[in-house]
Amino acid sequence: MSGFVLWLTGLSGAGKSTVAGLVANELEGRGVTVERLDGDIVREHLSKGLGFSKEDRDLNIERIGWVASRVARAGGGVVVSAISPYATARRKARSLAEEHVPFIEVYVATSIEECARRDPKGLYAKAFAGEIPEFTGVSDPYEAPENAEIILTTEGRTPEEAAAIVLDYLVENDLLDPAEVSA
Amino acid sequence: MSGFVLWLTGLSGAGKSTVAGLVANELEGRGVTVERLDGDIVREHLSKGLGFSKEDRDLNIERIGWVASRVARAGGGVVVSAISPYATARRKARSLAEEHVPFIEVYVATSIEECARRDPKGLYAKAFAGEIPEFTGVSDPYEAPENAEIILTTEGRTPEEAAAIVLDYLVENDLLDPAEVSA
Repeated sequence: MSGFVLWLTGLSGAGKSTVAGLVANELEGRGVTVERLDGDIVREHLSKGLGFSKEDRDLNIERIGWVASRVARAGGGVVVSAISPYATARRKARSLAEEHVPFIEVYVATSIEECARRDPKGLYAKAFAGEIPEFTGVSDPYEAPENAEIILTTEGRTPEEAAAIVLDYLVENDLLDPAEVSA
Repeated sequence: MSGFVLWLTGLSGAGKSTVAGLVANELEGRGVTVERLDGDIVREHLSKGLGFSKEDRDLNIERIGWVASRVARAGGGVVVSAISPYATARRKARSLAEEHVPFIEVYVATSIEECARRDPKGLYAKAFAGEIPEFTGVSDPYEAPENAEIILTTEGRTPEEAAAIVLDYLVENDLLDPAEVSA
């Protein structure tokens, strides 16, 4: 199979990394060379020193998008999980990738109420208390995708069920061989 | 064939980009998905704002090395051309790549006298006149590789002959299928 870029966008706590991890494991199990580009981790490699202003966020996403396009062009299945709050930056990442490979935008559409309820890192509590400036969805904008290939509702659904929707999309679009039926 | 990282290091004007371009074209002609990572060009994508201090040079090389390893892991033939003057930074790039793929360091060993004679961008004239601080080989160090897989003398040799040496190395090490003999 040839490469692709799967781009998970959504609020902090929406479940992007969880779903990305499950999808990546399943892809690897089916023989795909997977590259996970997680927003926070990639910052370490590409964007040390950048902050969370619009300019710095866009620069970080631009770099992730460029690397994603390079790896996918070489044949990798790239799984990005990054808040990537700005539509223009996501569109640029899409354009770069689509010069060579399909780009599948996955909007992990967990509501802010649910994200704040989960609050796995305790960040929403701080953000609502005004302790974190530029916190996406609270004190910083999130521009929801208008033409995502997949809109993933995570509420009332297990992470495994959400991952299965993404994998089904890849199979239906000939980007992944169907899994063999196990006995 | 699987991926690899070919890393051309040497002074400004040594002929790195010329040889890299010839090698990349030949690889593409033989069906390899090639990713060229040229130091100056990659700066635009990954390292806007970085300068030429040791710290910034190392950060730039670290990013190139990371991307090179990711692309090669996905199956690409990566051709890096970057002055990359510091041995430690090159060693880090090697370690990252060698977790997955072979790393071939090519020392483009053109002497500084010859580089200054060629001076395609007029930079040596300025550097010798003291107009460029931190110019590798003149006012900034270049740590020549001690264990490069290939030492490429470009003096008294055409760029095509130099490229052929690199391609032969790849064939001999099973990283490239031999070219068909044309009539």
